[in-house]
Amino acid sequence: MPFQIHAELHYQVLQRSTVLLNLHALKTPNQTLSNEVFEITPGVKWEELPIETSGDNRYIRLDTGDATQLDIAYSVTADIRPQMVSHQSLRDVPVSRIHRSALPFLFPSRYCQADLLGKLAWKEFGGIAHPYDQVVAIADWIFENIDYLSGSTDTATSAFDTVTQRAGVCRDFAHLGIALCRALSIPARYFTGYACDMQPPDFHACFEACIGNRWIIFDPTRLASLNGLVRIATGRDAADASVATIFGSLQFNGMVVSCTSPDFKPLGPDDLAGQAIVIDS
Amino acid sequence: MPFQIHAELHYQVLQRSTVLLNLHALKTPNQTLSNEVFEITPGVKWEELPIETSGDNRYIRLDTGDATQLDIAYSVTADIRPQMVSHQSLRDVPVSRIHRSALPFLFPSRYCQADLLGKLAWKEFGGIAHPYDQVVAIADWIFENIDYLSGSTDTATSAFDTVTQRAGVCRDFAHLGIALCRALSIPARYFTGYACDMQPPDFHACFEACIGNRWIIFDPTRLASLNGLVRIATGRDAADASVATIFGSLQFNGMVVSCTSPDFKPLGPDDLAGQAIVIDS
Amino acid sequence: MPFQIHAELHYQVLQRSTVLLNLHALKTPNQTLSNEVFEITPGVKWEELPIETSGDNRYIRLDTGDATQLDIAYSVTADIRPQMVSHQSLRDVPVSRIHRSALPFLFPSRYCQADLLGKLAWKEFGGIAHPYDQVVAIADWIFENIDYLSGSTDTATSAFDTVTQRAGVCRDFAHLGIALCRALSIPARYFTGYACDMQPPDFHACFEACIGNRWIIFDPTRLASLNGLVRIATGRDAADASVATIFGSLQFNGMVVSCTSPDFKPLGPDDLAGQAIVIDS
Amino acid sequence: MPFQIHAELHYQVLQRSTVLLNLHALKTPNQTLSNEVFEITPGVKWEELPIETSGDNRYIRLDTGDATQLDIAYSVTADIRPQMVSHQSLRDVPVSRIHRSALPFLFPSRYCQADLLGKLAWKEFGGIAHPYDQVVAIADWIFENIDYLSGSTDTATSAFDTVTQRAGVCRDFAHLGIALCRALSIPARYFTGYACDMQPPDFHACFEACIGNRWIIFDPTRLASLNGLVRIATGRDAADASVATIFGSLQFNGMVVSCTSPDFKPLGPDDLAGQAIVIDS
Repeated sequence: MPFQIHAELHYQVLQRSTVLLNLHALKTPNQTLSNEVFEITPGVKWEELPIETSGDNRYIRLDTGDATQLDIAYSVTADIRPQMVSHQSLRDVPVSRIHRSALPFLFPSRYCQADLLGKLAWKEFGGIAHPYDQVVAIADWIFENIDYLSGSTDTATSAFDTVTQRAGVCRDFAHLGIALCRALSIPARYFTGYACDMQPPDFHACFEACIGNRWIIFDPTRLASLNGLVRIATGRDAADASVATIFGSLQFNGMVVSCTSPDFKPLGPDDLAGQAIVIDS
Repeated sequence: MPFQIHAELHYQVLQRSTVLLNLHALKTPNQTLSNEVFEITPGVKWEELPIETSGDNRYIRLDTGDATQLDIAYSVTADIRPQMVSHQSLRDVPVSRIHRSALPFLFPSRYCQADLLGKLAWKEFGGIAHPYDQVVAIADWIFENIDYLSGSTDTATSAFDTVTQRAGVCRDFAHLGIALCRALSIPARYFTGYACDMQPPDFHACFEACIGNRWIIFDPTRLASLNGLVRIATGRDAADASVATIFGSLQFNGMVVSCTSPDFKPLGPDDLAGQAIVIDS
Repeated sequence: MPFQIHAELHYQVLQRSTVLLNLHALKTPNQTLSNEVFEITPGVKWEELPIETSGDNRYIRLDTGDATQLDIAYSVTADIRPQMVSHQSLRDVPVSRIHRSALPFLFPSRYCQADLLGKLAWKEFGGIAHPYDQVVAIADWIFENIDYLSGSTDTATSAFDTVTQRAGVCRDFAHLGIALCRALSIPARYFTGYACDMQPPDFHACFEACIGNRWIIFDPTRLASLNGLVRIATGRDAADASVATIFGSLQFNGMVVSCTSPDFKPLGPDDLAGQAIVIDS
Repeated sequence: MPFQIHAELHYQVLQRSTVLLNLHALKTPNQTLSNEVFEITPGVKWEELPIETSGDNRYIRLDTGDATQLDIAYSVTADIRPQMVSHQSLRDVPVSRIHRSALPFLFPSRYCQADLLGKLAWKEFGGIAHPYDQVVAIADWIFENIDYLSGSTDTATSAFDTVTQRAGVCRDFAHLGIALCRALSIPARYFTGYACDMQPPDFHACFEACIGNRWIIFDPTRLASLNGLVRIATGRDAADASVATIFGSLQFNGMVVSCTSPDFKPLGPDDLAGQAIVIDS
């Protein structure tokens, strides 16, 4: 199903800066792009960095040069084909058989200190038999125990903070989900994307857990519909997948995000009964 | 110059475990291996994971199965060709021209919270003009301000702790060096390896900084000679390059590490005057 | 009931040091002392600091001078009269009526960051109507969720760490209990003392919560019997009530602790049904 | 010299709350009050808590009851007699002779984790012979290395954060000064007060260090003149001396602070040459 996506970022340039942008939708076997347009303040030089490895994020690197404003607009039509997978088909794959490519997603990262959450994760979720059910329980626990509260956290907030402070935004919910999965030896990675019809409109973050050597998507905020997610980037955590990493000094002046599809029907509980969603495997 | 390397790890198996090992020397254009022997307790299944991308670490994954002891021995002859590079030849490459492959090494990671060290790094080292001189100053600052003190830290210790607590081991010294470099927008990565004639013998950790798009090696502990380092692994920090990541429960019973070369002459201050060392670029 | 107490501390003096000791039993209306003997390496000067305010701890301050060994022995007979108080008699006193002297025990302290635990405390315990039942639930939660594990923590470990890391010793259990109480606006303070027949013998730490303007004792480790506790010190947390605060450098060489009473009968669940214990009010 | 002080605090009551206020000037031998007026929204019950120990803060406790607004106004004329003390007269008193009352100000507290700053403090300031000169160096170091930046920190920020993050407000500057002093075995306490002619007008925080058994005032922000400080409260850190500690839910709607004296002349560098300032005792 095709989704119309539009995003804008507006900055004032306080000092000449280099910016790494992560707002282009990825091109994957299950996500096909058309009508992609990227517009930027005239005179600002930019390049799309080459993909080195399958699955790499599409980074745009720009140099503001002498510009005093930085206005960025991106639009694309993304046709995605998320797959429904029956829970029963997901095997319980031990660490000894996890794919090589998933192994780095077992390691702790800046915002996902899985190494510090081991006992908590095992006490809360260790009694659940199957890894899929463990991750469902993790996502439910986060939804029930963490308050979604704009402005309650900042870019230094990590899963170790959130598990105790019990408040955060989508980024924090995702980090905590990832950290708890890794603490149970389930590879987990950060997902950023556009979420169809999400209110309020914004870039969204959630996470994927590797179960049965497939990447299953989970959204502990329950703000997005899992069949309406267009992937921008994947990473160990937000450090890898920030919408804009700024080297220099810019003042943020606002943004616009929209993701719509005329025929979109969010999945309801009945649709999801017994089903997991794979965005790309 | 060829180095004879021998390493052993001994564990008691408390519970069936999967282990990811990182003790094999890498094969690179500047590091050629011969006579490699890997021996393990009979009956323990193991595999060397395939390299997916140039530069990947050589992970051994093993499953203890029913074994009650886990004894691992590794030996190899590694012929390395570190290159001396004149300081003057290292250009000051802005972020807008750093190679794609080095960019992830600008991001904060589990043990290297560069995002929290920005002001400190700029106050201490921001006045130094060239990035090479900045990293030299960082390594000197660490050597002078951090006590090398076995047992003062543990696997949870990060650069944010060490910069204040002022004590640690090679791992902590490397993490702090990496975090300070990244805070200055200099890509930096963790290096683990065998260090010729190091006393006491042990696996060693130090770091590489990307200057002029070349990876220059630094050892803020000053325990190893930079021309006697055989690379095992590279990573964002110790989370990526742990000698043994254990999923299960093993009791560590001791280890042996040696790295020697009959003709080895450590570089002295005179050899290094005006020269930086590149192990692999 | 009288308890025979004996404690020894042995150190090697690495460098002339001043030590603040907190191992003398307090003298209170409910705790009467006799046969108190304090012996110390000959030549070491010491003084008992004057009590300035009712309830102050009895600090011994010593200066090792030229001594190379520091051997300390303390013995006393402490007759204590803990009181049983019916739960029903404990009123729910709002903050607006808490005694002046209890107010500082609402504030966060070094090891009890109540300010960071507010949401967690309210989510877990906020639905319980009476503060006494809240504190019982806190102590039970700690017992059930935190592993008592010697060596798992150190003197830097705080409640904010323990609530996530889920392991610790009596000090950590007490800190977490205190922090959770304060987060619910219940004053709570650290208690150190001798615990009759505790295995293994050691100095013990637990906590008191101010409910109905009375200080009720709780031991989330369940290692000590609440009617067999002889108070050494009270404080905001372990920072106030360390057995030995060392200014200088001593090497700890061992200790002895015993607390016995020929006629002691620990309280059982039946004795405690409906009853809370007040050691001193 | 008499200072005219006026302060207002305005809140909307979101939920019935109890508030502990710390905005009354203290009455001390060197600080005499007259014309004290405390006004509050009609119908709100309040009491001034009795002073239990010499030096206690003057807490006002109020209960908003059914009020929907909470408006507080305080004014007083405070006549203060700060003393100038020659540096030379301040002896170097070892821990073995520090007054009993100063000892708790050696212990780490919520925002002043002196226990974690020991090596840093000794490396930076351990080579300075006299404790007075050490504290001067600490205050200078803070002024030079920490950026005064409104909004850069929050109520969870502690000295351990600030020493690395290198930004904060007066509260953070004071916490770091206190923590570094304690790490050097110099008792130090938090001071809040009204600062004559400070721009912008606000409640101010700085710190006192106990040198030669006298409490010497230091302001590492250099925003206030040391002879124009009227003491409100003293404490281990901000946890003890918050202007308003709220139990319930209030929305802050603004405040007014002024402290003036027609004849006030701030001390200049010449006046302070060789002189330290003692506010009380």
